[in-house]
Amino acid sequence: MNECITLAHGSGGKLTHQLIKDLFYKYFENDLLLKGGDSAVLQMQDGNIAFTTDSYVISPVFFKGGNIGRLAVCGTVNDLAVSGAIPKYLSCSFIIEEGLRLEELELIVKSMADTAKEASVAIVTGDTKVVQKGCADRIFINTAGIGLIPKGVFYSAKKIREGDKVILSGSMGDHGTTILLDREKLQVQSHIKSDCAPLNLLLNPVTEKFSDAIHVMRDPTRGGVATTLNELITGSGLSISLYENALPVRDEVKGICEMLGMDPMFMANEGKVLIIADSDQANNIVALLKDSPYGKDACIIGTVTDHYRDKVYINTLAGGSRIVGMLTGDQLPRIC
Amino acid sequence: MNECITLAHGSGGKLTHQLIKDLFYKYFENDLLLKGGDSAVLQMQDGNIAFTTDSYVISPVFFKGGNIGRLAVCGTVNDLAVSGAIPKYLSCSFIIEEGLRLEELELIVKSMADTAKEASVAIVTGDTKVVQKGCADRIFINTAGIGLIPKGVFYSAKKIREGDKVILSGSMGDHGTTILLDREKLQVQSHIKSDCAPLNLLLNPVTEKFSDAIHVMRDPTRGGVATTLNELITGSGLSISLYENALPVRDEVKGICEMLGMDPMFMANEGKVLIIADSDQANNIVALLKDSPYGKDACIIGTVTDHYRDKVYINTLAGGSRIVGMLTGDQLPRIC
Repeated sequence: MNECITLAHGSGGKLTHQLIKDLFYKYFENDLLLKGGDSAVLQMQDGNIAFTTDSYVISPVFFKGGNIGRLAVCGTVNDLAVSGAIPKYLSCSFIIEEGLRLEELELIVKSMADTAKEASVAIVTGDTKVVQKGCADRIFINTAGIGLIPKGVFYSAKKIREGDKVILSGSMGDHGTTILLDREKLQVQSHIKSDCAPLNLLLNPVTEKFSDAIHVMRDPTRGGVATTLNELITGSGLSISLYENALPVRDEVKGICEMLGMDPMFMANEGKVLIIADSDQANNIVALLKDSPYGKDACIIGTVTDHYRDKVYINTLAGGSRIVGMLTGDQLPRIC
Repeated sequence: MNECITLAHGSGGKLTHQLIKDLFYKYFENDLLLKGGDSAVLQMQDGNIAFTTDSYVISPVFFKGGNIGRLAVCGTVNDLAVSGAIPKYLSCSFIIEEGLRLEELELIVKSMADTAKEASVAIVTGDTKVVQKGCADRIFINTAGIGLIPKGVFYSAKKIREGDKVILSGSMGDHGTTILLDREKLQVQSHIKSDCAPLNLLLNPVTEKFSDAIHVMRDPTRGGVATTLNELITGSGLSISLYENALPVRDEVKGICEMLGMDPMFMANEGKVLIIADSDQANNIVALLKDSPYGKDACIIGTVTDHYRDKVYINTLAGGSRIVGMLTGDQLPRIC
């Protein structure tokens, strides 16, 4: 299949319909989508839902451990799961540059379908636009998602209290470092791959069992663990003390980051979660996380203190402390 | 304000937070958005919701009668409204080309806020990505939307029956012709502007009063009235007979289309609706549409017949009949 996407595939006419039928319906098949209306009709019950959206513009489109399609499903599933929701429905909207090979689009769509299946979510509505050569970079994907929030579950940074523990579900910076290596075409032999994964399978059981003890969850994507923790603590009047020797980083990620002058704490993750929870349940939460393949390296990386105001800091191995700020500038654009 | 969007505005770091606070929160202000979580939390009740998405890639970004921001709100509101839903919540995701002037982004965002207010919908969650110069064409916007479907309302092309009337809420091709004129920089003096409008104010009262009589509604955007009617009739085994002298087209649109060899029936609309309904209520529906400024030129343009199978045709003034197909190819890319 050497055919390419043309502007006519985005015109709303015959080729658009053919693309929808032959590609999207084929892989995303489900009753809700196949009704083919302007909107999907979903049955709801009394209760709260979570609603979120993200556009994915990652370059390169295919990378070790995933591609833009898998990422677009995982990212939105994860945003729902960290809100305590059970992800249920996704929308999916493509902006495609004229000339993209249909074969590549099919790989991406198949990957989205596989990931949606893994995460038990249905892609129920969508849209396709095509822009002229040079007006986009191959393909951008937006997904929006709806999840059901179990009764009584409410996570918010406002619930953070002194003494809370900070849990991280695994190693930092795998995704960012993978993209950096791919992007820069560095001749580094490595086994690093993106951690891109749907986290609802990991997090929904944690919410089911520990929702009273969990104050807030967040996936440290753009800006990494450092930026996400800063976001969470800002406005609380409290601070987060991180244990330097507890911060999980793969040796290869550490090595590559050192070589390139990057800090794994600021590198994006796409399959990790930060949980801030009551200290008395923190070890139990870690134990449950470790039961899942996506959480086997989970650990406690810090404590909420009143030492500073709205700051994240590291107690260094040398005995001092160092403030960790938010990402400034952009060392690595289009990581997601 | 001569500042421009930089890659750092999309990094998830400090400048991203500043942009969100100074621009998006300022204009889109509402309690749900201001919570600032990864997802918006929405309270639902038993019943059906409609869920839809569209990405907007229109060029030029600013055009007579609107801009990409107003379009992105209207398009998704309208997809919900034609499903019989009362639009409630929108997500909003920007893909911005590095170098876009902040001043222009502000105009777009303000326009989205104004249109959301007009349509009584809240923008509750969002995302911003920035790509390098040359990797997108100024700005693309995705909106996804959630609407509440009143009990008992269910519209579907499957409900179309022989004898049904086809109603159009106003003139054809205003949006497409406006974009064509802007795009081609034709030196034509005209008063034509896009019909871009949120149609829930027009359609929700119609649904409230006539949901039993209405079989299906659809907004004829890409591909125009001709393509949309073909979509609706395909698979029904029936046909749609259009009255050539009843098809509403502004004289200026007709003139420009004739000059350029375009057909207004295939030109995009962004503020019009097609309704297929029981013949005995069709005149009452038209009368109610005419009460609204967005429906004042509403009229019956055709009838569902069993004359052909899955076809749209025109009874010409000369007494013959002519099949009207779907749009093939793309005479005018990036109309929405």
